[in-house]
Amino acid sequence: MKTSLILCASLAALAATSRPATAVDEGMWLFNKPPASELKARYGFEVTPEFLEHLQLSCVRFSTGGSGSFVSGSGLVMTNHHVGSDMLAKLSTPERDLLATGYVAKSQEQELACPDLELDCLWSIEDVTAKVNADVKPEMSTGQALAIRRAAMSAIESAAREASGLKPEVVTLYQGGAYHLYLYKNYKDVRLVFAPEKQAAFFGGDPDNFEFPRFNLDCTFFRVYDDGKAITPRHWLKWNEKGVKEGELVFVAGHPGSTERAFTMSHLEFLRDVRLPFGLASLWRTEIWLKTFSDRSEEWRRIAEDDLFGVQNSRKALTGRLAGLQDPELMQRKVDAEAKLRAAVAANPEWQQQWGGAWDEIASAQAAYRGFYHRFSALGGGSLSLGSELAGVAKTLVRVADEKQKPNGERLREYSDSALESLEFQLLSPAPVYPDLEIQRLTMRLSSMAEVLGASDPAVVAALAGKSPRARAEELIRDTKLADVAERKRLYEGGKAATDASKDPLIALVKALDVENRELRKRWEDQVQSVERSAYAKIAAANFAVYGDSVYPDATFTLRLSYGKVVGYEELGRKVPAFTELGGLFERAQERREAYPFEIPASWANAKKKLDLDVPFNFVSTCDIIGGNSGSPTVDRNGAVVGLIFDGNIQSLVWDIAFDEVQGRAVSVDARAMIETFRKVYRANALADELLRKGPHGS
Amino acid sequence: MKTSLILCASLAALAATSRPATAVDEGMWLFNKPPASELKARYGFEVTPEFLEHLQLSCVRFSTGGSGSFVSGSGLVMTNHHVGSDMLAKLSTPERDLLATGYVAKSQEQELACPDLELDCLWSIEDVTAKVNADVKPEMSTGQALAIRRAAMSAIESAAREASGLKPEVVTLYQGGAYHLYLYKNYKDVRLVFAPEKQAAFFGGDPDNFEFPRFNLDCTFFRVYDDGKAITPRHWLKWNEKGVKEGELVFVAGHPGSTERAFTMSHLEFLRDVRLPFGLASLWRTEIWLKTFSDRSEEWRRIAEDDLFGVQNSRKALTGRLAGLQDPELMQRKVDAEAKLRAAVAANPEWQQQWGGAWDEIASAQAAYRGFYHRFSALGGGSLSLGSELAGVAKTLVRVADEKQKPNGERLREYSDSALESLEFQLLSPAPVYPDLEIQRLTMRLSSMAEVLGASDPAVVAALAGKSPRARAEELIRDTKLADVAERKRLYEGGKAATDASKDPLIALVKALDVENRELRKRWEDQVQSVERSAYAKIAAANFAVYGDSVYPDATFTLRLSYGKVVGYEELGRKVPAFTELGGLFERAQERREAYPFEIPASWANAKKKLDLDVPFNFVSTCDIIGGNSGSPTVDRNGAVVGLIFDGNIQSLVWDIAFDEVQGRAVSVDARAMIETFRKVYRANALADELLRKGPHGS
Repeated sequence: MKTSLILCASLAALAATSRPATAVDEGMWLFNKPPASELKARYGFEVTPEFLEHLQLSCVRFSTGGSGSFVSGSGLVMTNHHVGSDMLAKLSTPERDLLATGYVAKSQEQELACPDLELDCLWSIEDVTAKVNADVKPEMSTGQALAIRRAAMSAIESAAREASGLKPEVVTLYQGGAYHLYLYKNYKDVRLVFAPEKQAAFFGGDPDNFEFPRFNLDCTFFRVYDDGKAITPRHWLKWNEKGVKEGELVFVAGHPGSTERAFTMSHLEFLRDVRLPFGLASLWRTEIWLKTFSDRSEEWRRIAEDDLFGVQNSRKALTGRLAGLQDPELMQRKVDAEAKLRAAVAANPEWQQQWGGAWDEIASAQAAYRGFYHRFSALGGGSLSLGSELAGVAKTLVRVADEKQKPNGERLREYSDSALESLEFQLLSPAPVYPDLEIQRLTMRLSSMAEVLGASDPAVVAALAGKSPRARAEELIRDTKLADVAERKRLYEGGKAATDASKDPLIALVKALDVENRELRKRWEDQVQSVERSAYAKIAAANFAVYGDSVYPDATFTLRLSYGKVVGYEELGRKVPAFTELGGLFERAQERREAYPFEIPASWANAKKKLDLDVPFNFVSTCDIIGGNSGSPTVDRNGAVVGLIFDGNIQSLVWDIAFDEVQGRAVSVDARAMIETFRKVYRANALADELLRKGPHGS
Repeated sequence: MKTSLILCASLAALAATSRPATAVDEGMWLFNKPPASELKARYGFEVTPEFLEHLQLSCVRFSTGGSGSFVSGSGLVMTNHHVGSDMLAKLSTPERDLLATGYVAKSQEQELACPDLELDCLWSIEDVTAKVNADVKPEMSTGQALAIRRAAMSAIESAAREASGLKPEVVTLYQGGAYHLYLYKNYKDVRLVFAPEKQAAFFGGDPDNFEFPRFNLDCTFFRVYDDGKAITPRHWLKWNEKGVKEGELVFVAGHPGSTERAFTMSHLEFLRDVRLPFGLASLWRTEIWLKTFSDRSEEWRRIAEDDLFGVQNSRKALTGRLAGLQDPELMQRKVDAEAKLRAAVAANPEWQQQWGGAWDEIASAQAAYRGFYHRFSALGGGSLSLGSELAGVAKTLVRVADEKQKPNGERLREYSDSALESLEFQLLSPAPVYPDLEIQRLTMRLSSMAEVLGASDPAVVAALAGKSPRARAEELIRDTKLADVAERKRLYEGGKAATDASKDPLIALVKALDVENRELRKRWEDQVQSVERSAYAKIAAANFAVYGDSVYPDATFTLRLSYGKVVGYEELGRKVPAFTELGGLFERAQERREAYPFEIPASWANAKKKLDLDVPFNFVSTCDIIGGNSGSPTVDRNGAVVGLIFDGNIQSLVWDIAFDEVQGRAVSVDARAMIETFRKVYRANALADELLRKGPHGS
């Protein structure tokens, strides 16, 4: 039969094209679809439901955009310093600079309540793909289908919330190939327990960021409270005192933010030629504006420090990502992989009929997006982001008031009923707002709007209201009342009547920009997002049909499992060992003449004699991670902590697009270095004891 | 008569519209058209031919892009440290870092010969407008007229060179309204005499750059030699030991680089919405790439230091310029001025007939330029600039070989016979070239080319030759032989046959890009430059007719005279005094905790007790300057040195577009601070003595 011949041909093509996933430690796997066969084949490891449940329920997601884990029976949570630094900044004042000094709570009474930090622990996962797609009809446009799915997702979330009391989130996987309902236990009373000074956490600063060898104590500990008491989590990770050795299998459980590995060529070209260049230019601008702001005074340095770190970190990440996209060899591998999948689909008439058009559909979506991407981005993008905290407050107030007028299923996703509790918590945060920094941020955004759109553009003219970007920013921040949380509360509770009646200049600014912004968002949903969802669902189906279901979805800032081994690599003909030691920090400082940012932290200089300088400090592994994984626990075969993910090396930055373990590595703080320094540098013996205490899940 | 009525109307309009030039100390005046009546009216100063000749012949232009002046009868030349820093870097090695240590020659024998520094002293000026336009016919297209003028300019230069032995340059003034022949005495044997350490010259670094109050000893001294001996210049400036006082009249004679004050609105909008945003994004990219490069090691910091300073300096300047263009109030003044001139022209039918179309012609040129500006810039612009020194060498070799095939009058201007001597001197410079920095520069440019044009663009594909930007840059710099001056000489002397036969990869890269680049340059000349020249000539004529001839042309990096008074200003309600004192450096350092870049130079710390801390250090004046004026002498009514221009304050950055003396100020090093520190900090008594020695032009 002809069909079977074609099938044979496609299977033959397959044999040659089978994905390299099993040849390397690739994959950010779903907890409900773990890489069982790969682990068995490569490491002889049997992944059990108990292992997965224990890890899953020990992990948390930080609302500041990172990962963490419970590491004691008393609600202690471990994450990175650079994940916690937003809170450290918010808990600081000119007199108490926690980034500069670090913090050690001597007792639970001294633990500092964070103003607006939320942790989410993934409680359950359910595949709701069929429910989400239930009312989608073949004759619908992609835009109609998107609206139907959106309504279904909101309805599923509302029902789940009602039934469970948990925080629901329908997650779009495989760019639209599947929909899973995640239910989270949400924690809002989170307190600071321990942080080293930034000079120890981020020794080497921007110059050494994303580099290896490294010497960073990039950790911070919080504790979760409920009703005034430290909680007792159902699961928490024990500590492996002996640590890990080169060659051993390790796992990382965390929340990788986003990857674009399954993107089609036209989509990658859009990233390469449009989105990343625009994003990078915006980061360069922001970095330089923030740096010149910081340079003007010690206090301005302090208040802009966390922003500046974030921008520099993103800039390095995007630079590496763009370099990957601009590498013709890497792109050729992508071209080849796409061609093989398309050939396999084309070889089966039924598949071709169902899925064959997907690649061209995505190309047409990218072409459409090129026509308005710059304008949309300059006007704040889908979330109408204007750079300033207070403009963000104004945006939330205006949009939530408008959206609440609509039925739940018709709202913008971020204003659905299930999102409002967190939204309100963030909106009414008592965290400090710095007018000087706000003016700088807003000047920056107004100026960049004028640069991108031209200063005579009606939207720019409306935003500037006859002033220069700086004069306008000064006026807006001087005259707004939104720094006052009580005023925010009044407007939030007053709903649309209150925002309509408001004369606040930031509210007025948002209203002036929101009409066009919503039009552009609608255009994006209709011409880009919905087309992508529909087409990627086809590609996902094609992938499953051709390669079977052992395909993991691109990262979505939801819980994933990665695995790999601790192993060094070669660079410029030299061997880079897997581990560094505590003593390396002192050597690196000397090599760089202790000039900024290579100064030895004073606490370390004082403790040097007591420290065991041979204790492993940082180590690399082949675990597949990306931004968002920061703060993830690195665990051994028993699920015990051996390290704390805090970075990837420079060669790992292309992992966004394609995993490769020749040189790319994930970087962890070694668990042994934490205990050693907690005891000998920070006199944080209580913390060390708590980590080593054997609990119900201890061995 | 109708005409006279119209004339009366236009004169009446005039009365209301007369330029504010006499109300403020505005103007970068030609030495052959000095602001005699303004000086008389505002300061009771009679400007004499002797005063002008003395100043003119005492001034020099630096090939590194700055100004300077003879300050002794033995060929001593004063300029800024940041003008001389390019030479300081080229004279440095890993073991001898002149930027870090400074340099004091104890005798003429110790003076260090610079590898490729040229000084030009303006010997004579002749108006050749009629000659340049002699063969232009009304029926010609603007492109044809441009070619005719270009041929005439080259012929005038060749003849002048033949007749005088001097270095000729036909300067385009008033954007095409006039052409003057400048003849320069050119000096190529220039040696380093004195430089302070950069920490004293550039105390406060980028954070304090363009700010005031300032505390900078931004000076460097060279000496001009001829035939192995220090020259005896015909004119040189004496030193005013007593210095200047607040309120006194001062002059600045120097080479302002370029301004855009006479630009039409459409041209300013092009700057604001296209050229400056693109230029700034390019500076941001370069600054961050160079900064991350510098941060990797002490040696890389040293070799990139001068590049990084240049980029940061330009970035601040352009940021201020763009802020001015984005200020609706400033732009409204420009709109009003243009409307008044156009109304005055329109009111006279003959004028309207001759000149009335000029503004629309310029608008159409800008519209045309918008269509290919980004592409042209990304491909290196008119000069095919590729960021790297060695790629620049390759460009020069390829282009000069091609251009020499043509008659002198048909060549690109920069390859005309009169330009070849300097071109050869620069091309065969023995200055060091650093491969690591070259790779970084080239990676940066290849990557930005891909960002702007898209990585699939044929020009990008050709430039990358299947490699990533970094891999390609590494290959090009590894394989080129152009670091070898002998190879450059061989190719230069071998002409087109040699470059055609060359297999050098950088030569090949340039050839691959030059075809399209030349097409774009031709398009720019035909559709933009020639149209602007023709239209601005009309506007200049209109300006002369309406406002008389007391109009100065925009800056062209040629010698100009500015005047003003020493006076402070108000900022944020506080008085900013005109002078700072030496002691202020120590106070500012303390205020900034002596953190980088506010460390007290070690030599100053050692000398503090001896120093008279009350000696004036830096001062501000209303003299009208811009980039290129760096290193200009500030002189008193007698033409004696009272200071050394090194900066403008942040409020002066909009002077590029419009002068304003409410807060804008030029900043000078005080002559007294130089003598005091030369003697007490640097033990450079011979230099101080030479400056104070009375010569033939001394009082």
